Parts: sequence; C-alpha cells; structure tokens
Amino acid sequence: MRIDILTVIPEMLEGAIHTSILKRAQDKGLVEFGLHNLRDYTLDKHKKVDDYPFGGEAGMVLQIEPIDRAISHLKSQRQYDEVIFTTPDGEQFTQSTANELSLKQNIIILCGHYKGVDYRVREHLITREISIGDFVLTGGELVAAMIADAVVRVIPGVIGDEQSALSDSFQDNLLAPPVYTRPAEYNGWRVPDVLLSGHERKIHEWRMEQSVERTKRLRPDLLS
Amino acid sequence: MRIDILTVIPEMLEGAIHTSILKRAQDKGLVEFGLHNLRDYTLDKHKKVDDYPFGGEAGMVLQIEPIDRAISHLKSQRQYDEVIFTTPDGEQFTQSTANELSLKQNIIILCGHYKGVDYRVREHLITREISIGDFVLTGGELVAAMIADAVVRVIPGVIGDEQSALSDSFQDNLLAPPVYTRPAEYNGWRVPDVLLSGHERKIHEWRMEQSVERTKRLRPDLLS
Repeated sequence: MRIDILTVIPEMLEGAIHTSILKRAQDKGLVEFGLHNLRDYTLDKHKKVDDYPFGGEAGMVLQIEPIDRAISHLKSQRQYDEVIFTTPDGEQFTQSTANELSLKQNIIILCGHYKGVDYRVREHLITREISIGDFVLTGGELVAAMIADAVVRVIPGVIGDEQSALSDSFQDNLLAPPVYTRPAEYNGWRVPDVLLSGHERKIHEWRMEQSVERTKRLRPDLLS
Repeated sequence: MRIDILTVIPEMLEGAIHTSILKRAQDKGLVEFGLHNLRDYTLDKHKKVDDYPFGGEAGMVLQIEPIDRAISHLKSQRQYDEVIFTTPDGEQFTQSTANELSLKQNIIILCGHYKGVDYRVREHLITREISIGDFVLTGGELVAAMIADAVVRVIPGVIGDEQSALSDSFQDNLLAPPVYTRPAEYNGWRVPDVLLSGHERKIHEWRMEQSVERTKRLRPDLLS
C-alpha cells in the first residue's frame, strides 16, 4: 500500500511517519509513504499556497492551483483509489473505515489547513471527505497521521502478533476488557484473582463478562 | 496553561509540539509543554515500561510503577486540574471538551500504548478518560497532540484573528459554509457570483443559508 500526503507543514508529520508502527511497516515493505509539501507545487516565486477568502471572511484559504498540480503530478505516476480530504464536516472515521482503507492500493490524503481549502477542490478533485470528530484543529496533519496509523496497523503482517489487533476494542463491537500486568500487587491495589488463577476458561469468561459489562455501561450504542 | 505529556515515544510528538500553532502559542508564552519519556521513570536498568498481561492475552501492557512515579514527580512540582488518559473507551472528545479544557491551568495527558495500561492506573491515578473516536491506534501520542492542538487554539490570543476560531464548524452547532479564494475562475470552475459581489448583507445571508443547508444535509444530528 502507498499513502501520499499533501500538506503545508510536512515537518509536523515527519515524527509520526518515521517512528513506531509506521516505521516498522515501511521497514517491512508493507507500506510506502510520500510526504509532499504543497509549496513545491506553486509557480509563484514566494511559494504562496493560500490567499484571503472571497467575500471578506477572516482566515486564509488554501488555493486550488498547487493542490491540483500536486494531485495531477501524483496521478501521472500511478492510479489512486481515493483522494481523501480531512475536514470536520466529512464522514466520521471509524474502525470500519480503517479496515476498508487498509485494502486499498494507493491513496492520497490532502491535509486541510488555515480556514480550509477552496471549495472547488472538494467538488472536483476529492473522492472522499473524512472527519476525525466534532472539533476543529489547526490543520489536517495530525488527522492524516492518525488515519495512516489506524489503517496501517490492520494490514496483515504489520503488527507482530495478529491476535493483538483482533482483540482490540471495536473489532467485535465490544470494548476491550481491563488488562493488568506485573506487579500483582502495587500500593495495596491487587490484580483480580481470576487472572492469576491460570484457569483458561474462567479467564476467558471473565474477560467476556467485563467486555459486555463495560460496553453496556459506557457505550450502549455499540450493542444496539 | 501547562500541558505535560507522558509517553514512551516522545519523538512522535516532537514535530507536532514544535511547529505551527503549538509553537506559536509557546513563543507567545500562552502555553508551556512538558514532554516526558516514561522510561526515565523506571528503576529497572533496561528501562522496561511494559510487561505481558496477566491471564495470557496477546500484546504488552504499560506498567503502573513508572506511570505512578512520573505523575507523582509532576504533582510534587505543581497542582494539576486533570490527569487525562487517552483510550478508545473514554468519553468522546468534542469541541466543547476542547473549550472546557482550555480554561484549565495544568493538565497531564498519559498516552496509552501497546495493548493498554495496567487497569489500576485508570482506577487510581487518572481523573478523566478521553477518546478521539471509535477506532484503535498504536498509541495515544497522536491523540495527545490533537487534544493539545484543539485546546490551545481556542485560548484567547493564540490565533491572530479571533474571528477565525469563532466562525469554525461546531462553535455554533453549524458546519462552516464553503470558502473560496483566488483565482475566481479555474479550469472553468467559477466562484459563486454572490461572493464577488461586494454586497455584505447578501454574502452574510448566503453563508448562513449554506451553513444551515450543509448541516441539515450532512449532520442533521447537530440541529436536534
């Protein structure tokens, strides 16, 4: 899989893309990243990528020209399954979006920034708009990094232990049960006895009960 | 405001904290960050912060000891309003969470990682659990960066143009209207005439109509 990210602040993404799971996935050859600075696609000598909005609102708007040029350049090199724009009014990103995107070959993610992008970009150049939630960020860079992380970690072979991703929250519409590790007692706080019992069936039952109980209490909507 | 972040991968956060709005807010003295590697709070010579879960599940679990030590160390220096843990089964982070947190003095954010943290941390050391959405990430680092970005940008004085944050999506339960910038025509695609008209009242009306129409179509839940 290949993920190309278009941004005005590539340095905001460098850390995320070159550490942890995304680094390991690249080292294993399971995913490839392209990080593109929109300023490299301007013809303007000041490398200007934004301008004031028509109609006199506050804030700056990313212009269509450098974005169109960047996307066209990438499309001349390979076919893309999706050109994603990160925006708070897009479709809500969930685990099933991550699972679905992990099956794609090549995707582009355009990071919104400043007040937004010229709406013609969204009408004509974007195939999918994704939101991470009902809040506003300075830009889409962290959203792009997050989408990449969620998508890449479910690609088979990326996480060493496949079991680990499958028992995550949301993969079965249940929240994960509590986990504990050494020491068995700390500050007078003890790990539940059943987990120390070595009794596999009981441990499995306890975990399932905890998952269901926690889901009912915290996220009843997942069960309906 | 001061935000202390506890993590096992500080380098994943460096880029986000030292660029863009978070950098500017620090430069202006409006926010202070502390980035703490949990490995620095281990007594173990291998700086081990995780161990296998009790009961034999897959994945690794962050141990309570280094986390307790890190939090105690910070608390010995100042009072904290919240000790936040990022976890997919926490309360959903929204713009109102961001607005609310922006009024706090000092907060700690503990980034989850691997399979999770020892549940006793959540029971005894954490005051608030926050989720960014229904999906699983490798760790809470990007979530912490995102919370910091959303919170800091609404602190008065951080964004140059106050108007800009106030006209964002969600601040008034309406999605933002489309924005356009130069050129007025690109590739045959024209900016709506009203925005070029210079007629302030009509522009204002058009924007309000677009906001309401887009919210009704894309996010009717925000209006109910």
